[in-house]
Amino acid sequence: MNETIRNILARRSMRSYEARPVEEEKLAAILECAQFAPSATNRQPWHFTVVLSRAMLDKISAENKKVMLASPDEKVRQRAQDPGYDSFRGAPMAIIVSGAKEAAYAACDCANAVENMAIAATSLGLGSCYLGSFKVAMERPEGAHLLAELGIPEGYVPLYALSIGYGNESLGERAPRKEGTITFIQ
Amino acid sequence: MNETIRNILARRSMRSYEARPVEEEKLAAILECAQFAPSATNRQPWHFTVVLSRAMLDKISAENKKVMLASPDEKVRQRAQDPGYDSFRGAPMAIIVSGAKEAAYAACDCANAVENMAIAATSLGLGSCYLGSFKVAMERPEGAHLLAELGIPEGYVPLYALSIGYGNESLGERAPRKEGTITFIQ
Repeated sequence: MNETIRNILARRSMRSYEARPVEEEKLAAILECAQFAPSATNRQPWHFTVVLSRAMLDKISAENKKVMLASPDEKVRQRAQDPGYDSFRGAPMAIIVSGAKEAAYAACDCANAVENMAIAATSLGLGSCYLGSFKVAMERPEGAHLLAELGIPEGYVPLYALSIGYGNESLGERAPRKEGTITFIQ
Repeated sequence: MNETIRNILARRSMRSYEARPVEEEKLAAILECAQFAPSATNRQPWHFTVVLSRAMLDKISAENKKVMLASPDEKVRQRAQDPGYDSFRGAPMAIIVSGAKEAAYAACDCANAVENMAIAATSLGLGSCYLGSFKVAMERPEGAHLLAELGIPEGYVPLYALSIGYGNESLGERAPRKEGTITFIQ
């Protein structure tokens, strides 16, 4: 097994972080990896919002909390009731990835970019968490002001986010993989 | 820059391959990387069909060709008219990734798995090509028999494929990245 495969397999969801910021050179390398992800017909239908402001992450999180507290799903309400609730898992920063609405493969292309960043972060000794639920408020009309504040261009929608930082928890055993997911055609 | 980041950045779309097969150990490592991709709530909503049979790849390709020749889009017809047309770019093998229909994030989760495989392949000295257009025939009622032949479980749909093999072309300069895709929030 080589170093790259070791890092692909070592990537885990980190849900607790130290406060210390991510170094600029590391962030630059992570963003370069994002931009060189494969995209259908090399369209690169993505926009990256690099949120280095914890105040902005707290603001998004507070708006999400309001939406979640009004959810018909009890589990969602319970999660938001946690006094320590944070959509970004306490990370010092997060990168929000938005996709062009009219790019047919944007969901795929942007996922490739996030996965590249997550692997790069692992290789640099950083933890990360791939997030989908960070956008519940900004998807609604009353939270749409956040799109402008985050510099998300017209015609793009937030799809995923990656929180990044130095991990502050030791991760246990990996969850087992599902059985029977591979068919060989010889 | 470390080895992992070097491999993330070195991944390119390879469109011409040697005939020699991919070694079993390398394939096993690539499939392990696929299975450890992140997925929403760790649902792992994927199925992998590892097609080692060039006859099967040729069959899928021939059915795609028929569909493409009937396309209203002239460019698509032209591509299919090429006597060397092959949906899998002449690779000795391909891995088709199918997603569970009712998994909301399957398009993302399966893309993460493909990207992990593409990076792992690069690190092992292999070329790969991330494909979306391999499925035009099997998405139609008249091509649905292919789903069963490929072992794609009920409730899953083919999303992406990755052709893999030893590359047979030297790739030129990378296409430039789009400008203005990053916003920083300090």
